[in-house]
Amino acid sequence: MAVSKCNRLNGALIKELLDSVESVLFDCDGVIWRGDQAIAGAPEVINSLKKNGKRVFFVTNNSTKTRKMYADKLAKMGFNATEDEVFGTAYCSAMYLKSVSKLKGKVYLIGSNAMKEELLNVGIEEVGTGPDPITGVQIDWANVPLDPEVKAVVVGFDEHFSYMKLNRALQYLSNPECLLIGTNTDTQLPLEGGKAVPGTGCLLKAVETAAQRKAQVVGKPNHFMFDCVANQYGLDPAETLMVGDRLDTDILLGSNCGLKTLLTLTGVSTLADAKDHQLSGCPDRLGMVPDYFVETIAELLPALQG
Amino acid sequence: MAVSKCNRLNGALIKELLDSVESVLFDCDGVIWRGDQAIAGAPEVINSLKKNGKRVFFVTNNSTKTRKMYADKLAKMGFNATEDEVFGTAYCSAMYLKSVSKLKGKVYLIGSNAMKEELLNVGIEEVGTGPDPITGVQIDWANVPLDPEVKAVVVGFDEHFSYMKLNRALQYLSNPECLLIGTNTDTQLPLEGGKAVPGTGCLLKAVETAAQRKAQVVGKPNHFMFDCVANQYGLDPAETLMVGDRLDTDILLGSNCGLKTLLTLTGVSTLADAKDHQLSGCPDRLGMVPDYFVETIAELLPALQG
Repeated sequence: MAVSKCNRLNGALIKELLDSVESVLFDCDGVIWRGDQAIAGAPEVINSLKKNGKRVFFVTNNSTKTRKMYADKLAKMGFNATEDEVFGTAYCSAMYLKSVSKLKGKVYLIGSNAMKEELLNVGIEEVGTGPDPITGVQIDWANVPLDPEVKAVVVGFDEHFSYMKLNRALQYLSNPECLLIGTNTDTQLPLEGGKAVPGTGCLLKAVETAAQRKAQVVGKPNHFMFDCVANQYGLDPAETLMVGDRLDTDILLGSNCGLKTLLTLTGVSTLADAKDHQLSGCPDRLGMVPDYFVETIAELLPALQG
Repeated sequence: MAVSKCNRLNGALIKELLDSVESVLFDCDGVIWRGDQAIAGAPEVINSLKKNGKRVFFVTNNSTKTRKMYADKLAKMGFNATEDEVFGTAYCSAMYLKSVSKLKGKVYLIGSNAMKEELLNVGIEEVGTGPDPITGVQIDWANVPLDPEVKAVVVGFDEHFSYMKLNRALQYLSNPECLLIGTNTDTQLPLEGGKAVPGTGCLLKAVETAAQRKAQVVGKPNHFMFDCVANQYGLDPAETLMVGDRLDTDILLGSNCGLKTLLTLTGVSTLADAKDHQLSGCPDRLGMVPDYFVETIAELLPALQG
């Protein structure tokens, strides 16, 4: 098994792989764009896949945008895409709370306005977005007023994260029936030029440490991210390709769900990382070895236009 | 060994134990006070120990007060104590940076004004205290101006903890030569009535997760907390008793340093916790089994006044 994995995808193999699938799932950051810059050739790849009759979906752990905001960003960069094809964790977390948790109540949200909007779209009210500065002393913090209708704490990316938000999460979570949901565990958001800023994983770890509880994480590599697409569009895992730049989220999701997997080297993980997993002899790490890799998804283009 | 541990300290055993030591180290919160309320009888115990010729020290992981502030709090509650007897992590972290790290440069401080003051007392400048609200967008955060003289990030308790502070810590720590020091890893600060607020351990975990590095932790159970007292006062571990309410910090420190250990049940850990460690058969957990336990340190009083 292991020897047939982690192959350079080129020549006739490209067409062979694409012919074998009917749907392609793309991660976004580090795969089709970096920050506000499209990866060269990426729009042409997506648009050609569609012209060739493939279904294309965008599956991202980033929780800062609604489906609508993603569709606008995609359109502006020249991608032929609709919001129904976007599965970000703002949307998927709302779907998870509604369909899996079957939440009856409000959410205390450490997160963005985009998450608030996606929650409201499925009929879930939230409290908590925006700045929450500290006032008073310890005993005031412990007795901060709580909304009795809150039945879940949800942690996504929140640039207004503060000690007071952490404290409010702890006070809600001291009720063992209050759920703890995280959008994703990515520790850093990589930017152009090798820089990075702290990711949602840091905020979630702070909340988990305060409450001494593990969160249910919605994002990749959780199966739910694929289920969300598969249930709505009737995807067959065996005929689906997952394309991503992270072994621990994108490729592991693909392996967890029985998809074909393709690593692209324009983002976080390196070929050396993939080979390390492959040679580790550790069964837990084999799920992070992709079937194939490319330097950039632009390499798919000739086969699509041929 | 294990069977002679975790004994109820009462009757003649109390005098026997006290006669066998010449110094007693007390944790503060949950041992001699809770919040702003002294444990009943605690001042009398401390004062009587001193009258009986014992040396007494206060060894706490709490980083929110200077030695002077602790001395004032102790005096106000009726404890006969001087600031030289107080070893909190604000003071000890400053000592650690000076004597162990031999820091030549400034500190980026996630912490209190008390920590700032203790750093200045040993001649170390800091930047970072006070609120640090978010402005701009991701690329601005990644390029936030850094002080080139900063050579260490120090994380203590900081009620102004924010995403921007987390981000600044990450940017400093992206230089692998920048040190990462934490005052302590306590996950919660327990208050009266079973309530709690998030402790320094949560903030430190967020920074460690962002930077993908483990901090050097100064506080208990690190040996350094005892060394700090022992070096200044020439303590003999075999003639020193550590009294605390937490198995994973106070009692483990005592075990790590060869001290006698006494658990008091007025704080975080329970007798069941101690017995669980004792019966676990796990060598790693035996260090968290105290030699003795009492319901409250007030139980020492008759032996001291007899």
